[in-house]
Amino acid sequence: MSVRAPVKPSAFEAGETVELGRFKRARRAYGFDEVALVPGRVTINPEEVDSSFQLGILRLAIPILAAAMDGVVDVRFAVEMGRLGGMAVLNLDGLQTRYADPTSVLQEIAEAPREHINALLQKVYQAPVREQLIGERITAVKRAQVPVGVSSVPAHASRRAALVQEAGADCLVVQGTVLTARHISRSYEQLSFEKLCASLSIPVPGAACTTRGVLGVGVPQVTATSDVAAARETWLHESGRRVQVITDGGMRVGGDIAKAFASGADAVMVGSIFAGTTDAAGGGFHWGMATPDPNLPRGTRIKVGRRGTLREVLLGPARVDDGTQNLVGALRSAMGVCGANDLREFQQTELVIAPAIQNEGKLFQQAQQVGMGT
Amino acid sequence: MSVRAPVKPSAFEAGETVELGRFKRARRAYGFDEVALVPGRVTINPEEVDSSFQLGILRLAIPILAAAMDGVVDVRFAVEMGRLGGMAVLNLDGLQTRYADPTSVLQEIAEAPREHINALLQKVYQAPVREQLIGERITAVKRAQVPVGVSSVPAHASRRAALVQEAGADCLVVQGTVLTARHISRSYEQLSFEKLCASLSIPVPGAACTTRGVLGVGVPQVTATSDVAAARETWLHESGRRVQVITDGGMRVGGDIAKAFASGADAVMVGSIFAGTTDAAGGGFHWGMATPDPNLPRGTRIKVGRRGTLREVLLGPARVDDGTQNLVGALRSAMGVCGANDLREFQQTELVIAPAIQNEGKLFQQAQQVGMGT
Amino acid sequence: MSVRAPVKPSAFEAGETVELGRFKRARRAYGFDEVALVPGRVTINPEEVDSSFQLGILRLAIPILAAAMDGVVDVRFAVEMGRLGGMAVLNLDGLQTRYADPTSVLQEIAEAPREHINALLQKVYQAPVREQLIGERITAVKRAQVPVGVSSVPAHASRRAALVQEAGADCLVVQGTVLTARHISRSYEQLSFEKLCASLSIPVPGAACTTRGVLGVGVPQVTATSDVAAARETWLHESGRRVQVITDGGMRVGGDIAKAFASGADAVMVGSIFAGTTDAAGGGFHWGMATPDPNLPRGTRIKVGRRGTLREVLLGPARVDDGTQNLVGALRSAMGVCGANDLREFQQTELVIAPAIQNEGKLFQQAQQVGMGT
Amino acid sequence: MSVRAPVKPSAFEAGETVELGRFKRARRAYGFDEVALVPGRVTINPEEVDSSFQLGILRLAIPILAAAMDGVVDVRFAVEMGRLGGMAVLNLDGLQTRYADPTSVLQEIAEAPREHINALLQKVYQAPVREQLIGERITAVKRAQVPVGVSSVPAHASRRAALVQEAGADCLVVQGTVLTARHISRSYEQLSFEKLCASLSIPVPGAACTTRGVLGVGVPQVTATSDVAAARETWLHESGRRVQVITDGGMRVGGDIAKAFASGADAVMVGSIFAGTTDAAGGGFHWGMATPDPNLPRGTRIKVGRRGTLREVLLGPARVDDGTQNLVGALRSAMGVCGANDLREFQQTELVIAPAIQNEGKLFQQAQQVGMGT
Repeated sequence: MSVRAPVKPSAFEAGETVELGRFKRARRAYGFDEVALVPGRVTINPEEVDSSFQLGILRLAIPILAAAMDGVVDVRFAVEMGRLGGMAVLNLDGLQTRYADPTSVLQEIAEAPREHINALLQKVYQAPVREQLIGERITAVKRAQVPVGVSSVPAHASRRAALVQEAGADCLVVQGTVLTARHISRSYEQLSFEKLCASLSIPVPGAACTTRGVLGVGVPQVTATSDVAAARETWLHESGRRVQVITDGGMRVGGDIAKAFASGADAVMVGSIFAGTTDAAGGGFHWGMATPDPNLPRGTRIKVGRRGTLREVLLGPARVDDGTQNLVGALRSAMGVCGANDLREFQQTELVIAPAIQNEGKLFQQAQQVGMGT
Repeated sequence: MSVRAPVKPSAFEAGETVELGRFKRARRAYGFDEVALVPGRVTINPEEVDSSFQLGILRLAIPILAAAMDGVVDVRFAVEMGRLGGMAVLNLDGLQTRYADPTSVLQEIAEAPREHINALLQKVYQAPVREQLIGERITAVKRAQVPVGVSSVPAHASRRAALVQEAGADCLVVQGTVLTARHISRSYEQLSFEKLCASLSIPVPGAACTTRGVLGVGVPQVTATSDVAAARETWLHESGRRVQVITDGGMRVGGDIAKAFASGADAVMVGSIFAGTTDAAGGGFHWGMATPDPNLPRGTRIKVGRRGTLREVLLGPARVDDGTQNLVGALRSAMGVCGANDLREFQQTELVIAPAIQNEGKLFQQAQQVGMGT
Repeated sequence: MSVRAPVKPSAFEAGETVELGRFKRARRAYGFDEVALVPGRVTINPEEVDSSFQLGILRLAIPILAAAMDGVVDVRFAVEMGRLGGMAVLNLDGLQTRYADPTSVLQEIAEAPREHINALLQKVYQAPVREQLIGERITAVKRAQVPVGVSSVPAHASRRAALVQEAGADCLVVQGTVLTARHISRSYEQLSFEKLCASLSIPVPGAACTTRGVLGVGVPQVTATSDVAAARETWLHESGRRVQVITDGGMRVGGDIAKAFASGADAVMVGSIFAGTTDAAGGGFHWGMATPDPNLPRGTRIKVGRRGTLREVLLGPARVDDGTQNLVGALRSAMGVCGANDLREFQQTELVIAPAIQNEGKLFQQAQQVGMGT
Repeated sequence: MSVRAPVKPSAFEAGETVELGRFKRARRAYGFDEVALVPGRVTINPEEVDSSFQLGILRLAIPILAAAMDGVVDVRFAVEMGRLGGMAVLNLDGLQTRYADPTSVLQEIAEAPREHINALLQKVYQAPVREQLIGERITAVKRAQVPVGVSSVPAHASRRAALVQEAGADCLVVQGTVLTARHISRSYEQLSFEKLCASLSIPVPGAACTTRGVLGVGVPQVTATSDVAAARETWLHESGRRVQVITDGGMRVGGDIAKAFASGADAVMVGSIFAGTTDAAGGGFHWGMATPDPNLPRGTRIKVGRRGTLREVLLGPARVDDGTQNLVGALRSAMGVCGANDLREFQQTELVIAPAIQNEGKLFQQAQQVGMGT
């Protein structure tokens, strides 16, 4: 499962559109809150569904990756994530590779008063990344014999590739705000995704992060995932090879994760939910960007608290009923209710468009029963 | 009116769909807040409409069932419900059949501090169900010569069937989170709905409860009811037999109940509205699940207060104007305004899609008048 | 302009529909908040548009009627309304015709503590209507040589018709929750609209009031008005006679009134806005129903305050910028911006569907400018 | 780039419509919150995109104009705006041309208690406009060798035209609530846009300001901009000349500005965002209308605070992450992500309809990532 050529970018071609104005047409795009899963005609015992995920030669029992956020993933978190059956992605451009002992920096961020936090974040990320620390961090996780991914900004991805593969990383994620098959600049050499893939034997996912408010850019996640899934199918048809779609962003509860798979994803990447675990590196806080842009910040420190252990969040038992704990249990229950034996079947499950109820703050509590008297 | 074969599950076949993304299409589904009834061209005096409901050999003056929730139905409540013209459904897997005197347990739940409630709920439901109590509870209600239904989880439904029929129950509801015509599991024997129906002379409705937030599963109630009603019509056409559609979930006011019938229901089941009566077992509280799932809780204790008697809620006079009292009066008034002589005609009444007004918290006060000067 | 036959009730025939579920289809209906007027290509000086309204032999400078609410219209209010160029409708089934001196009752309502208000309202409306007072009230308004309408429940409309015409009323509004061309009841004789119209020389409008929350019934006002306007056109085509469409309900600001005309209305009836004037009978309060239903209340006392004089509300100058004052100025400005010389032309103006902005509570402040550089 | 004939007003011709009611059809119109930009297949380094704007002989590095609001633009602000690369428009009917020293008046407005503000605003605008001050203000800005625009109500535009051109103004904006190619009035002579353009060598944009709440008039900005852009294209096709579309209204963050260009605008005009700069004339306040209408006020004093310098708001570095600072950086980043080399290309970028998330007040934080595993 290694792909050497970039995916044909046909994902965003016009589908059904409506008129925005006489100069412009647009598609309607959908987010998690706007859709719901439809129960199947046949249901399956949740304990018997297969929710595992294959990434390259790696088989993960849990199809969930921990996002490369400094408030989430450090060595200890990555080991726990791997032990539970998933995989964490370590940020190679973050605090873990800039400081030999990042603990005190993390604590400083957690304790800084609100009015100093942006300045502090910009300061602490000015320390240089030390290549030696990259190797040490990967090795530390691998010592526990669990899988681990790493994440790099495009600019340094090629240079770091051999190093991370040698250190034992199972996956390299290339992550940036401007990541496409082709990026144009006169001022610096561009990353060749194609060359990078050819030089490595481990999987290389790419990710692009955008923010709707600041830039106005952003396709809601259900439509975005579905579009990329369609591109995967096109590519499979053309090349005979199947790439994996990992969707990341906006999932806040187990139901959202289930919807991501039903939209076409092969795996999901979760960040802020994990930031709220007692295992997270950030001590109950997270901040949006791997490397804050000093001129155009698009994410600042957010307090998420520490609501449970990573084990509780992933595998339960849930101590709350708001969907933020036992994510895997929820996913498997949803698969069972929808009659999906595995994630491939679950990608085919039916969705309906059903806007979230915004009344009285009970967004997630529309219990429903339909009975048939005989 | 007894049905031996499972209903043909064609309800959720694709109707009109739109593109979610290139990989996926979906139907738009609708909830109560999104529709409104259209006044008829002919109107009828509300006192003269027929709102009765026939379930098997039973004719209920009030087409409303009380849901099998421990915070709602005990013997005393069931007797009052029956006397008023409806029917309560008693939860056979709840506190009433686990404790000879459930009163003190119910009081403990009502008085527990918020941080202990989940643990308490899980503890009290670990006491075993005692078959002897099942018979006693049913007999106690029947002594008042009113109809009563009972509800069982699928796993025990077959075993309990003869017992409850003998004790005099008028209806057996089989209720679970995974209830379809066919359920797959290698680890336990499945309930055969067909066999169960064949072994009993009382009606056997089935119900499936799902939660949108935790699992992401859930079709809004207007669409769900309409789909099941369409399946009823298909089955009537194919078999010559008409099954009854009982819809349950999400109805908070009289207007919602009227919309449920207009969507195609033959009867409705109501839980949380009744939990707020002085007659309810829960003392002003209810909790979602009949049998809480210790690993994936999907409903915790909710305080609803005690706003009126069951009689006031069902038959009025209403002391409030928010639609939560005199449900039957509201239903009959709506039937009259829409010109429906009985519930079958009311199922044919016109609905419009008209999103609820979310401004200023006055969700239920869009009075409307259209006059024609001459 | 007198119509003897009931209007052909084709208004609510199915137009464009979508699938609610497989059993049911529905039209999408629209309210004021969901539409906006489109500026015209030609604009007109607002001081030169004609916003007058012809009702029978009566020509009103202001196409706005004051609704027959006890919290709004008494003799003094009706005189002021008439002097300003509009017409008030006096409630013949309200406090003004039950009490020789209703002032103390109105004061009692305004001062009653919240918990006693429903009981008080039901008590004060149990005093009988005195026919003598009906004549006295009408005469008192006519003494000021201004037009006045009266409103009656259907049950008493025929009996009172001659009396009110003799006393000098300019218009009789027949108003009830169940008013259609045909109403069915075995227990009381029905009002014959046709006969009533034939017996009078003054105009007879009919109005039906429904409440969405309690009964679930209600077509949003833009669609309802447009449907009735279509029926007017059909009737005009078939009979050669043009009836007047007066729309009432849900208008809170001048912009809503303008939209009502653009939806097809010939005049509007306004209640709660006027309740907030210093001239209103209710002293800063209003209550929904003319005659409260003791079993199913659908409107209780609402405090609206006293925000300005009736003159300010109708003709300005507005002292606030929220659209609740200078309603006629706003209507005329809107007509000018849309290039409509009179209300008939304004009925043809273009509307767009443009959901209200719900952000930050600034529902009514989306200023817009589109410029073209040259 | 001077246009002598009015633009063919075909912008608002019916496109795709739906039925509002049987009497009326309407188009669906869209605002900024309802759309989002779609990332391009090719991306560009934001530092290398061209975001300049050509207005007549003037080339502005920044395609943003400061709106002619008294709470924003005075001489000092206009000089700073020009130095940064944009252009401010000075209100010729505002305080700057009524008072030799407007500072004390501005201070009085900022300090007035809420209950006196409407009366105060009406009083201070009764001082006459002094033609001498018009020349002085323009000259004062031009002394700094930066471009400046001026804005006049239609009634005085022709008379002032020669004066402002002589004083060195780079652009004359004609601004009013009723500005169309043709305006009808019997009581005063109308502005001839055609004659005005013919008499000047500087560009003459026209603008119409409407308010949705008070008048009910207003087409949401995405649709309005797109419609006017279509008219520009039609005019270009017919005449061979290209006019510039400047859109003004409703933009609160950088993302909105990006969407305005993607909707078809050539430049944007911004008011209230600039009112919140420390450079603004209003001291942290702004008020809607250039010249308040004493009878129908449509905008009162709004406190916006002083959140940063004009430089920070336009060019960064942003000290906040809510999209209100570094507007140009955000625009250029959006252009880069969408693969647009210049604003003309950016007008062609794809938009999707994606309603804003209204939950939990986090309107602007839907970060999104879509990755493809290999």
